[in-house]
Formats: sequence, C-alpha cells, structure tokens
Amino acid sequence: MIVTLLTDFGDSDAFVAAMKGVILRINPAARLIDIAHNLRPHRLKDAAWLLNCSWRFYPAGTVHLVVVDPGVGGERRPIIITRGEQMFVGPDNGVFTYLYDADFCAYEITNSRYMREEVSKTFHGRDIFAPVAAHLSAGVEVGRIGTRMKDPVMFEVPRPMVTANGVEGSIMHVDHFGNLITNINRELFERAFVSNSYEVVIGEERIPKISASYDQVPEGSLLAIWGSENTLEISANLSSAARRLNIDERSIDGVRVLIRKEGK
Amino acid sequence: MIVTLLTDFGDSDAFVAAMKGVILRINPAARLIDIAHNLRPHRLKDAAWLLNCSWRFYPAGTVHLVVVDPGVGGERRPIIITRGEQMFVGPDNGVFTYLYDADFCAYEITNSRYMREEVSKTFHGRDIFAPVAAHLSAGVEVGRIGTRMKDPVMFEVPRPMVTANGVEGSIMHVDHFGNLITNINRELFERAFVSNSYEVVIGEERIPKISASYDQVPEGSLLAIWGSENTLEISANLSSAARRLNIDERSIDGVRVLIRKEGK
Amino acid sequence: MIVTLLTDFGDSDAFVAAMKGVILRINPAARLIDIAHNLRPHRLKDAAWLLNCSWRFYPAGTVHLVVVDPGVGGERRPIIITRGEQMFVGPDNGVFTYLYDADFCAYEITNSRYMREEVSKTFHGRDIFAPVAAHLSAGVEVGRIGTRMKDPVMFEVPRPMVTANGVEGSIMHVDHFGNLITNINRELFERAFVSNSYEVVIGEERIPKISASYDQVPEGSLLAIWGSENTLEISANLSSAARRLNIDERSIDGVRVLIRKEGK
Repeated sequence: MIVTLLTDFGDSDAFVAAMKGVILRINPAARLIDIAHNLRPHRLKDAAWLLNCSWRFYPAGTVHLVVVDPGVGGERRPIIITRGEQMFVGPDNGVFTYLYDADFCAYEITNSRYMREEVSKTFHGRDIFAPVAAHLSAGVEVGRIGTRMKDPVMFEVPRPMVTANGVEGSIMHVDHFGNLITNINRELFERAFVSNSYEVVIGEERIPKISASYDQVPEGSLLAIWGSENTLEISANLSSAARRLNIDERSIDGVRVLIRKEGK
Repeated sequence: MIVTLLTDFGDSDAFVAAMKGVILRINPAARLIDIAHNLRPHRLKDAAWLLNCSWRFYPAGTVHLVVVDPGVGGERRPIIITRGEQMFVGPDNGVFTYLYDADFCAYEITNSRYMREEVSKTFHGRDIFAPVAAHLSAGVEVGRIGTRMKDPVMFEVPRPMVTANGVEGSIMHVDHFGNLITNINRELFERAFVSNSYEVVIGEERIPKISASYDQVPEGSLLAIWGSENTLEISANLSSAARRLNIDERSIDGVRVLIRKEGK
Repeated sequence: MIVTLLTDFGDSDAFVAAMKGVILRINPAARLIDIAHNLRPHRLKDAAWLLNCSWRFYPAGTVHLVVVDPGVGGERRPIIITRGEQMFVGPDNGVFTYLYDADFCAYEITNSRYMREEVSKTFHGRDIFAPVAAHLSAGVEVGRIGTRMKDPVMFEVPRPMVTANGVEGSIMHVDHFGNLITNINRELFERAFVSNSYEVVIGEERIPKISASYDQVPEGSLLAIWGSENTLEISANLSSAARRLNIDERSIDGVRVLIRKEGK
C-alpha cells in the first residue's frame, strides 16, 4: 500500500530518511511517495493546501503522513483522519482542515503498542506518526490504534463572496512559478455572471478577461485563467505574477481579488 | 515498469505529487523515479540536457515523463517519442531534441480516452502526460494513444568544430558543483591532436593540459578533465569553476572553449 | 532489497538519476530510497552525520550508497563497510567514520567485474559505487566484490567531557530548523548531575533548565531539550536558535556548549 509523506523537514537533514526506515521495517511492502518536504518551517497552512491539491488523485487505501508539527511534544494530539477510502496521520493542529468539508472520522492515537518503544519529545514523526502510518498501510484497523474523537482543530478557510459588485475572493497559495491561486471557483463565477461583462481586479491592476491559455497575452503580461483546481489564478505569461505584483506567501492574507461587473 | 519524472515544478508544490497519484491509480505497479524537479522554470534546454545524461542508463521499457511546458494550453502538441526500447512523453517544444540524433518515432497524443476526463488549461502534466505515461507503462500500445507525426520541434544544438587552430566548442551545462561541461568529445580531440601539443583556453584563462583527476592541481585551481559524458569539462579542484570564471547557466551561450594547438 | 542514496549532487542535475538507472538495470527489484542530496558540496562530515542519524532505522539487508567524493579519480579507495546486517558503499574518505565505533568489516572494492565497463575519472558514483550497491542488493557476496582491508580513513569525532564544572560538549550539526544538535548525551548528563542543579551555557547565553517540550518557553525564546538522538539540543520555540545565536554549519567548530553545575 502507498504511504505518502509531507513534511517541513527540508532536504538537507536525515529526518525524512529516518521516518522511511521506520516505515519499511514495519511494512516492507509499503510504497513511499514524497508529496513535498521543502515547505517553509512550521507553515501548516501551506501543508494543508498541498495535501488538499494532491490526496484526491491517490488510490483507495493510501495513507497520507503529514508532519508539520511545531507543537511536537506539547499538548496537541496525534490523530488519524479517515475520509472515503483514504487515511491521514499527523498532529491535530489544523493541517487536515480541508478534509473536514465532507464526511470524515477522527481518531486520537492512543495505543502505544503502535508507536516506537521510546518516544522522543522532539520527533513524533519518527516515533509516533511513521509507525502508525506503517501499521495502517499493513492493514491494522484504525480502531485498534486510536479512539474516536470530536472537533479536531481547524483554521478558518477564507470563502469567496458574491456581492453586488461581483465576486470577491482571496489568494490561497503562491506556487513555484509565481501563480496566485485564488479561492474563486468557476461554478460560483458562472452563477454570478450569467450574462454580464466583467473585469478581474487585483490591487491596482485590472485584467480585462479570463484567458483560455497563458500564451493569449504577451510575454510578461498579467492574465487571469482557470487553474488546475478549477479556481481563478492570476499569472504572467512565461513570468511570475507574484514578482510582478510584489506578493509572496507572507503577504497574501491582505490581498483581495475581485471579478467586478462592468460599470460597478 | 519504471516511469521517470522530470519537471520544472520545484519542490514546494503538490504538482509532482498529483501526477504520481494519477499514475498510480492507473498503473499501481508503476515504479516512480524522480530525475529532477528543481530546474529553473521554463528552461527546456536544461531539461533536455538532464534527460540526455540519464535516459540511456535505464532499462528497456522505461517511460520517461518530461513536463517542462511553458506553452501548456496553447498550440504545442502533446507527444510520445520512442527510441530503442524506451518511451518519452511530454510537450513538443524541443525538450526531446537530443533524442533525435538517432532512429526514433514520434507520435502526437490524440486519443482522449487515455487522458483524464476533464483536461485543464494549465496542467497537462497531470491531465494528459501522466495518464499517458501510466498507460504506456501498463503495456498499452503507443499506436492506440497517438498517431505518427513528422518533424517534432527541435532547438539548434551547438556542435564542436575542428579548425586550423585546434578544436572549438561550447558550454552545454553548468552543474551543481560549478563544473562547465562542454560539447568537445574525446574522440574528436584524439583525431585532431594525434601528435600535437595543446593548451585549453577559456576566456582569459589558459590551462596547460587535460588532467587525469581533480587532485592533480592545487585546491581552487582550474583544470580541464574528461568528464562523465566523455566530453571536456572545465573544473576547479574542490571548488567551482563557474564561480571562479564568473559564468552561470544564463551566460554560457557566449562562451567558447578552445583546445588550441601549440604555437597557434 | 533496499538501496538508500546519500550524495552532495543537489537536485538540479541528472547525476542521481543516472545512478538510479544503473542500479535498476542490474537489480530491477531494488527499492531506492533517497536519504538526502542537498548537502553542501564536498562536506563529508555532514554526510557522515546524516548517515549516522538514519541507517539504524533500516531493515537488515539494506545497502547504503554514499557518494560525497571530492577525491574522485585520485588515490582514495572505493570501499564497502559491513556492520550488523547492513552494508555501506562509498569512498574511503571518512564518510563512514561513525560506523567505526562498533564491530564492522571493511573491504576495498577491487573486482572490476562489478563496475561499469568504462570507468570515468569524475563519476565513480555511477561507474563503481552504484553497480556495486546494486550487486550487493541482488545478493552477491561482499567477498567476491572486494578484499578485506584495515584502517579505513576516519576524521576525529569530538567527544563530550565531564569536568569539575559540569559537562562540556560540541555542536555536531545545525538542522533545517536551526536547532543546534550537540554531542552531550543524556546518560552522561544523568551520571554527572545526580543531585546537582545546573544551567546550560552557550556563548553569552544561559538557559536555566532543560525543557520537556518546545512550548515550555515563549515563542522565539531559547531552550535546551533532549533531542531525537538523545543528545542535548539548543533550540528556539517556533524559531531558529542558529539565527538567534548567529551560528551556522560553517562556524560550529569553535562553539562549546556547557551544562554547568550551579555555583561554578
């Protein structure tokens, strides 16, 4: 069975390798797939977003191991989430927030039999989460490892709003290419703009239409496009919209994106 | 069967992970191997070079998935190249240029049955190339997925020249250690310099001989050496020739490397 | 069987991919696991440390391939180390130093039948170490590949000292989060401080106690904690002790960490 790994451990330490060793000792048949490890340290919202953009594509039975865990060793609970046919293992700090928008079950990991014998104060990824993920991938029932719990920790997810002026949304993620990925989804747009003309507004910039491909604007120019998650993205052809607009992951919280009805 | 992945998607997004999920759903037996993902965005020549330095080492039946695709969603065709017993899937933008120096077949991917049901405008890696690679790795005949085509897009590959003065070549790649990898291959050199003395010239620097190992010159000194592709490399012992000569990937196009006959 | 890979080849070249291809051609059943590739070039002590923090977690039969090899092509020997049920392949330059603190066997790789046919002067990772690791993982006896040797190269490992004032140690590694990992282990501390009070001293800073978790101090504050290797770590809650103390991998050699008896 597949075990994916998503951490903020970077790529110049042995933390991920230690976790993989622990998994393979318990379940030699586990297939290990890296989601990403070069997140900015402690940024659990980034991890939540990346998980949100990848887990759906995996087969039934996949176990997703997420260790972005600034509260390791403290009060936060170690948990397992099940949703559909997939399982998720990690700290209860909000990193699984996007999973909670549909039916799921949450379990607190309580059975120390499925942890490493000695549990450190600083590396539950290796000592709790990796062995639990390995046992789940080997077929151990989730109910033997944890006990049902309520109200896992969530962060607030910004939602797009339909207003008299149009649709207003937020930037959820700045990707590697400098694309600004918003939460304005296509269905919402199509309901709100059945027959109206519109323009896309971000900061001082106005983008006259939503393009069908990057190359519909000149190199370096800003454009709006429906992205791979079916939400609006602000991009720049063969360039970086983030750099062009002087926006990065740290500054996205204050930025609003508006699809404005003409004449408003 | 092995599927390799080579992209410019970086290591802090979920794009590669989404592609891997898509592949594993279609062909759970696929073995996924990363070539590299931290190329500079949109630099298809870098991707072409890395593919050129790695595909030959893989077993028959390997499928190489290359997604450096600045023209995604536009006019460029999605293609499959077969060469020898290996297959290559990606955009027709020149990224497979080095494969075209021997017998190959090119196919345009036309059968939407082997794509994801919904194809986005921005992520053909996930929606076209990954599923096609997965189906190929599962044994689907290439002719069922694509139709034969002619004249795939190529970029011009600089060739070394034998002149009255010696052999003149270009820098093809600057590697992680700052080695400057040229296109002057050993056979050409040996034909041109049967009995002559020579020196290696790059910019203002003269290197008196071709060393047999890095440690034949003092730490930090420039040297020339036959590299792992059997072409001439300009290196610096325990240091970076690129930094020493103030050359990087962006500036290599103008730099000539000369193996000059003595007295010329 | 598992083959792990640990190199300083970075993530924007095809060197690691070439090695993986070589391994898979020889042993298609090999399971490849990356330890890390983004070490600073030529820093074999970093590689030694990462290996030290990961190999123990792997199953019996694992082959660890380590290619941090600034002396490639020169006099240094290619070697195999066996320790317990695991095997290690790489250059004899000290990268396996931490393995030599318990029973091990060392072999010089001498049988060219297990190398690639043509061995370059610059890439023994691909031409010697990868094929040897592949053959070992496929079950070839180590004695057929190499011959027993004595006295592999080691670097000096700093040891913690018990003094009249307390326990004095060194920083072994600065991790991705800026934690400073020392060589002061918990057993030594507990023997030295049966009944005494103490404080932790690093540079001008005094830390009054050893915390049980990061969140026992305010955000950004320094703390001391027993880390994942059961040695003392200097950390900063939700922040970087390295940045706070202006220490990095290059400057750790001069820094002493002291657990000082009260009143001394």
